[in-house]
Amino acid sequence: MGNGQIYRHVKLAGMGRALAGGEMVFGGETRYRLKDGETLLDLAEDAAGKALEEAGMSMAEVDCIVCAMATPLQAIPCNAALIHERMAKGMDIPAMDINTTCTSFISALDVMSCMIEAGRYRAVLILSGDTASAALNPGQKESCELFSDGAAAGVLVKAEPEENCGILYARQCTWSEGAHDTEIRGGGGLLPVFSMTERNREDYYFDMKGIRILRLCAGKLPGFVETCLREAGIAREEIQAVIPHQASKALDIIMPRLGFREGAYINRVSAYGNMVSASVPFALCEAVGEGRVRRGDLVLLMGTAAGLTVNFMLLRY
Amino acid sequence: MGNGQIYRHVKLAGMGRALAGGEMVFGGETRYRLKDGETLLDLAEDAAGKALEEAGMSMAEVDCIVCAMATPLQAIPCNAALIHERMAKGMDIPAMDINTTCTSFISALDVMSCMIEAGRYRAVLILSGDTASAALNPGQKESCELFSDGAAAGVLVKAEPEENCGILYARQCTWSEGAHDTEIRGGGGLLPVFSMTERNREDYYFDMKGIRILRLCAGKLPGFVETCLREAGIAREEIQAVIPHQASKALDIIMPRLGFREGAYINRVSAYGNMVSASVPFALCEAVGEGRVRRGDLVLLMGTAAGLTVNFMLLRY
Repeated sequence: MGNGQIYRHVKLAGMGRALAGGEMVFGGETRYRLKDGETLLDLAEDAAGKALEEAGMSMAEVDCIVCAMATPLQAIPCNAALIHERMAKGMDIPAMDINTTCTSFISALDVMSCMIEAGRYRAVLILSGDTASAALNPGQKESCELFSDGAAAGVLVKAEPEENCGILYARQCTWSEGAHDTEIRGGGGLLPVFSMTERNREDYYFDMKGIRILRLCAGKLPGFVETCLREAGIAREEIQAVIPHQASKALDIIMPRLGFREGAYINRVSAYGNMVSASVPFALCEAVGEGRVRRGDLVLLMGTAAGLTVNFMLLRY
Repeated sequence: MGNGQIYRHVKLAGMGRALAGGEMVFGGETRYRLKDGETLLDLAEDAAGKALEEAGMSMAEVDCIVCAMATPLQAIPCNAALIHERMAKGMDIPAMDINTTCTSFISALDVMSCMIEAGRYRAVLILSGDTASAALNPGQKESCELFSDGAAAGVLVKAEPEENCGILYARQCTWSEGAHDTEIRGGGGLLPVFSMTERNREDYYFDMKGIRILRLCAGKLPGFVETCLREAGIAREEIQAVIPHQASKALDIIMPRLGFREGAYINRVSAYGNMVSASVPFALCEAVGEGRVRRGDLVLLMGTAAGLTVNFMLLRY
């Protein structure tokens, strides 16, 4: 699992977020889905533009464009190349995808902060966002009513010597016992698009086994969180804001078991649902905008993702 | 584009490769395609097992599993989680995907060597490989006869103080003017699986505009290579082996224009065709196995990828 305790003197210089334009309500909870003619590229471009504006930077100052998304926009090329076409055409800026499904944004912060620490890049634009609505199974109510389409972005830069911000700790684990608890079996190399028939159509839909995930998390997450806090040398009380992946309503079951009482963590599931890779950066961006997270605050970003992958990151915002 | 001149004291401790079991010949050139019952997971596991064996390491000594592949095995979760299930089930090792299409292996070396330099990880297993055969258009002879299914893997570790090896230089650029010159338009969020009809079926096939790519490369690649060599302070004559992405037969047109004469670079297109993300690590692994690349040799890994992304990396093997 490596050494998560290395300090990276980086800063999220700006953030932005965007919601799909179609609004709907399921059982009193609001969800957003792409409206006609709208694509995830529109949302991602909107969010990234806001992030650059808040950072006071132009695209020409960005060293690398990273798409930290769970699903492809096209099967080829990578998502970041398509964002590049929208926002950086004619520039030499490298583009790449980093993917750990729902926690891709945290993984990308982990990876790119190391590249910045190593001196490889100075400023990286990280975009998250997914179109869950493209693969929802109308027959699976639990997941079909859970997701929203949205995007969020952040500009990660090398911090100035006098700035009190950075990544204090990061740890990622993958527990592949849960590899098939959240999945879309079809559409890739294992079960190609062209193999879809009326009989196996369900294999191309998003499939979530909520109870199995909950059981795996209940068994393994508490120990994982204890290990992280101990290794980081941080007590829960020192953390100003906990921003978990907005996986589902089960947040209010899981988080107290991890020692975080209601109110200590951000829960926007009823307002936005699960926005896959966008959930964590979207909630962080909103919390910053509302003044709930301020410069210098200690923020915990965490979440579980299909894989099953877990991420835990302590960020001095 | 950042600073590619930072030195990373890392070593490819072991490599492995695997070919699909189905062999076919087009115009005297051999291609390999998955045989019945075989999947890319089988090939990737085989290649990774050999890489670990050559490195004299067990999976338990690996800090991170990275899939550097161009295409997904499933739409969700990421490829590395599925490899994790095969090779590391029950272990906590983190798994993630890094994707720049055909040059994903070079990008992953670039990224993960920085994570090793920063002290985050010590040993990373990087796997490449794709199932091009899943999306070839029988009506597009040029691409349909070009690809093979294969996999390759490498174990990247922190080098010992006395070892004369490492990454001397790395540079990646994306020129999204070519974003649609190599693509599969369908199958992702922009044109979902469920939108496929008899009329738009071609959008779900691999589509390569060979002439356009060649024109873009001819215009921009020579300047890119000159810049890299100048920044790295290395002359072509100092490089023992050039390992380009095995994009197509056009290799013998492009490479001399970049100042690399026939024989100075490895061309195995007639033997294997284009193996997408596996091409570069597969050719490097073969060259090491045949004694063409030895410890201490200066090796240039380079290539163009859908995006259009270009990668250039100088490695003291």
